[in-house]
Amino acid sequence: MHFADALTQATKDRSPVCVGLDPSLAKLPEGIAKDAAGVLEFNKGIIDAVHDIACCMKPQLAYYEVLGWQGMKVFWETCAYAKEKGLMVIADGKRNDIGTTCEAYADAYLFKDSPVDALTVTPYLGADGILPFIERCKKNDKGIFVLVKTSNASSADLQDLPVGDEVVHEHVAQLVESWATTILGPETNLSAVGAVVGATYPEEMSYLRTLMPHVPFLIPGYGAQGGTAADAARGFIGDGTGAIVNASRSIINASSGKDWQEAAAKAAKEMAEEIGLALRS
Amino acid sequence: MHFADALTQATKDRSPVCVGLDPSLAKLPEGIAKDAAGVLEFNKGIIDAVHDIACCMKPQLAYYEVLGWQGMKVFWETCAYAKEKGLMVIADGKRNDIGTTCEAYADAYLFKDSPVDALTVTPYLGADGILPFIERCKKNDKGIFVLVKTSNASSADLQDLPVGDEVVHEHVAQLVESWATTILGPETNLSAVGAVVGATYPEEMSYLRTLMPHVPFLIPGYGAQGGTAADAARGFIGDGTGAIVNASRSIINASSGKDWQEAAAKAAKEMAEEIGLALRS
Repeated sequence: MHFADALTQATKDRSPVCVGLDPSLAKLPEGIAKDAAGVLEFNKGIIDAVHDIACCMKPQLAYYEVLGWQGMKVFWETCAYAKEKGLMVIADGKRNDIGTTCEAYADAYLFKDSPVDALTVTPYLGADGILPFIERCKKNDKGIFVLVKTSNASSADLQDLPVGDEVVHEHVAQLVESWATTILGPETNLSAVGAVVGATYPEEMSYLRTLMPHVPFLIPGYGAQGGTAADAARGFIGDGTGAIVNASRSIINASSGKDWQEAAAKAAKEMAEEIGLALRS
Repeated sequence: MHFADALTQATKDRSPVCVGLDPSLAKLPEGIAKDAAGVLEFNKGIIDAVHDIACCMKPQLAYYEVLGWQGMKVFWETCAYAKEKGLMVIADGKRNDIGTTCEAYADAYLFKDSPVDALTVTPYLGADGILPFIERCKKNDKGIFVLVKTSNASSADLQDLPVGDEVVHEHVAQLVESWATTILGPETNLSAVGAVVGATYPEEMSYLRTLMPHVPFLIPGYGAQGGTAADAARGFIGDGTGAIVNASRSIINASSGKDWQEAAAKAAKEMAEEIGLALRS
């Protein structure tokens, strides 16, 4: 099934909540070993707790790479487990390169039977760094999310530089929309090419939604970083689809005590309810 | 030792040639297994062949990630072997993220006893995506190379967008220079913050050299992509230091026959001579 159609179905079946699996060893709950094996146990516990609430899991590759190759083994085991539990999986790697190297990244994460459904990518290299990913998406029913306007304070350093009447990230948004229309889902008319747009910039989000009508949004910056459900709601399209909202620490580190799974489920449920309310208001 | 001082010494001891370890399974020479173990054997053979010619090796992470966690194991074994042979190591990952995730990438590659000396990074996220790397560089005598103007055709899509009287990559160059001056080597007055500048844009290279006087350049695009030794020479500073020039396929795939090691050594030696000639002319 086309990536955007599958993702949309998952948000309807459960919610637009995407849970970021950013497992910091220092924050693993009591009773979990502070090593790669502990991370796998923890991730499985979080997946068990939220799999009937969230549409997808978003493991952040840095937290696995920092554990060496053993961490990468846990990354793949985590993705496979999430898949088994019926969840979509977005590998958050912000990868970027050109030519055969770009193809190697695409082949690393977006191969046919990969438990990864989509990869986040960075547009600094232009079309050469994006089109090889899209080729693999077409072939293997996978997706990408291109960084457009990120949630952090210094995103303005480059992304908000004025270019004529617009700013850099608006120009990137137009490129993303042009790539997106080459790979639309037959059911949703949404693309397998998505965009990362931070909840911390609600005005930009509203405008970017008009610039990229076919592009699913992956919205970080909710909760800990200050974005609200009302802010995030601006990234959805009319029928309440077209976006997913990520939270990491506020869910996976909701409690460091013995109730960490219950606390994660509760946090995810509350977030799903808040977003649902915002979308209906 | 400060990264830029160590790199400069290595270029003086041997040459400014950086050998890209981008081992594609399909291109491994005859007699080498087409798997992760074969890649390690191949990499060691290339390192043996060029370690007295090149200043450093640049493994491209995509080619290891595409082999799964077994590939990441080979990546680390390759880096350790290059280090043993006295070479500097640049992990080409073009990583980018913010906050604790950025710290996790820094900790993954730039930890104190890492066989990796430097990591390539992408500036799309602004200072938030760069400063945590620089903190680790200061603490652990490591380096980064920030993408400024890349060698590919579509680098213009974003990097050449006009911003007032300049273009995006010139603005990035000024940011890089401002970060660079916070971490200068006592011997060379060059920074642990480097820049990636493609040999395929020689005019931009000359201008970027003036914008970033303290910044070591990592120059891709030589050979296969069309950049010449004279083009690359524009990235060096007056005394013939301040830059390294990368070649990957033209060295490591110089022959797919039994003479692959001799062919790699010969290609690296010729490249070092060409650059030496261009620097003296």
